[in-house]
Amino acid sequence: MIIIGEKINGSFPSAGRAIAAHDVEAIKHLAKIQSDALAYMVDEDEDSAYLDCCASVNVGEVETLKWMIEAIQEVSDVKICVDSPDPRVCLEALPFCKTPGLLNSVSLEGDKIDVVFPEIANTEWNVVALLSGDDGIPQNVEKRMENFNKLMDATAKFGIKDSRVFVDPLVEGLATNQESFLTYAEVCRQIKKDHPTIHITSGLSNISYGLPVRKMLNMGFMCLSMQAGMDSAIVDPTNRDMMGIIYATQALIGEDDFCMEYIGASRENLFGPLPKN
Amino acid sequence: MIIIGEKINGSFPSAGRAIAAHDVEAIKHLAKIQSDALAYMVDEDEDSAYLDCCASVNVGEVETLKWMIEAIQEVSDVKICVDSPDPRVCLEALPFCKTPGLLNSVSLEGDKIDVVFPEIANTEWNVVALLSGDDGIPQNVEKRMENFNKLMDATAKFGIKDSRVFVDPLVEGLATNQESFLTYAEVCRQIKKDHPTIHITSGLSNISYGLPVRKMLNMGFMCLSMQAGMDSAIVDPTNRDMMGIIYATQALIGEDDFCMEYIGASRENLFGPLPKN
Repeated sequence: MIIIGEKINGSFPSAGRAIAAHDVEAIKHLAKIQSDALAYMVDEDEDSAYLDCCASVNVGEVETLKWMIEAIQEVSDVKICVDSPDPRVCLEALPFCKTPGLLNSVSLEGDKIDVVFPEIANTEWNVVALLSGDDGIPQNVEKRMENFNKLMDATAKFGIKDSRVFVDPLVEGLATNQESFLTYAEVCRQIKKDHPTIHITSGLSNISYGLPVRKMLNMGFMCLSMQAGMDSAIVDPTNRDMMGIIYATQALIGEDDFCMEYIGASRENLFGPLPKN
Repeated sequence: MIIIGEKINGSFPSAGRAIAAHDVEAIKHLAKIQSDALAYMVDEDEDSAYLDCCASVNVGEVETLKWMIEAIQEVSDVKICVDSPDPRVCLEALPFCKTPGLLNSVSLEGDKIDVVFPEIANTEWNVVALLSGDDGIPQNVEKRMENFNKLMDATAKFGIKDSRVFVDPLVEGLATNQESFLTYAEVCRQIKKDHPTIHITSGLSNISYGLPVRKMLNMGFMCLSMQAGMDSAIVDPTNRDMMGIIYATQALIGEDDFCMEYIGASRENLFGPLPKN
């Protein structure tokens, strides 16, 4: 499982306040606590974690990303996920990163792919690709797979290997779309069938939008989607229950030999009850 | 989802002490807190919950079950799941129940089925049937399905409808059998394919035996198994996180129109953070 730490995102109140105040120490703190929670995974495989970095500001986005990325890199070696709705902004921010990471995101909307793919084709940058297009989020499996196939035409054209692509099939809220998970899972299964090395990711908390006790729906979605083929997610790695269900699901679905990662992560105190002082 | 409340079982320390001391009030307390947690489900459908009653004593099992069942019925209208490894003991205890409930259990071992099925054939009692046989738990899917087919031959012979049968495909510990969940889930899918109205249940905590933070594996198993077709489980209904993942999974897999049960159970305060006093 590849975890993209979500906490450094200006759309969350705590990070938003830090960004507005140009509070370098607050950003470093968010980077540090996430890096600590991800260290056990990164020790095994440096490609198993990223720290998302999203400014979410209307003006000066590139300059904001610059100081945020520099702050993160002062305290963390975890690869960075450069996050902006504007792929041109992402491209401008890539050089601030010491190591190639993850560009978040392109989609089938407008010229996003044509802007990004030529620039990253011959680099080691990975890329998140949403399956939305000019008409928004396709409502059924077939239309999302049409967009996926267009995406695959573009990656083939630019020689971008499947293993560099993180497809986000997109999650709608269960409160307004009862089929939301079922659609997401079927898209996952169809994608993985023919593209076993491609990654599938999700900003999964959309599933519980507008519903109570969102944590339970988010954990259930994580568990069920991992079985459907989702192998990455944008989550808070300091959320002990979410990390616990991720390690547990890996073990249950046969992706953790002898439960060694589950046992190891538990010994590292990454989930379960907090030790009493 | 059909919940069998697990707390009144002499193999648990608190219930074991109550049984040893013939502490009627303690049994009534365990019945009351479980009934309260299940009331929201039972209001919708009286067949959606049972209270397990297992004496787990070496001598005087029938007499012990008698006072336990009477204690439960003083405070609860939830149907009773009469639980003993000896089906003859179960049969002797059935008349203590005011309403037909669930006999727990028979298996393909010895003459259990031949003892029980003729006695309950023309009653309204439901029955839990384990897929173990004289050789213990079959190690693979094929052998469990062979036992399932033998079970179906017996239910057909005695005219017991699928909807009265709770099959327990049996869960082994993940620590010693990495395929444990995958085997369980495949058996669930094969059973439900040809027998859509049969119930599938589980005493799921075996999955985490010998592993740390068992709660996470138990919750993950619940979620994934519900998707595979498990529609009943022997769990603690006062475990708020477990009940939360059950309601969340029902909503995710399309078995809760407009999330109404999820929202309702949350309003009834059956899961989620405890209200602050």
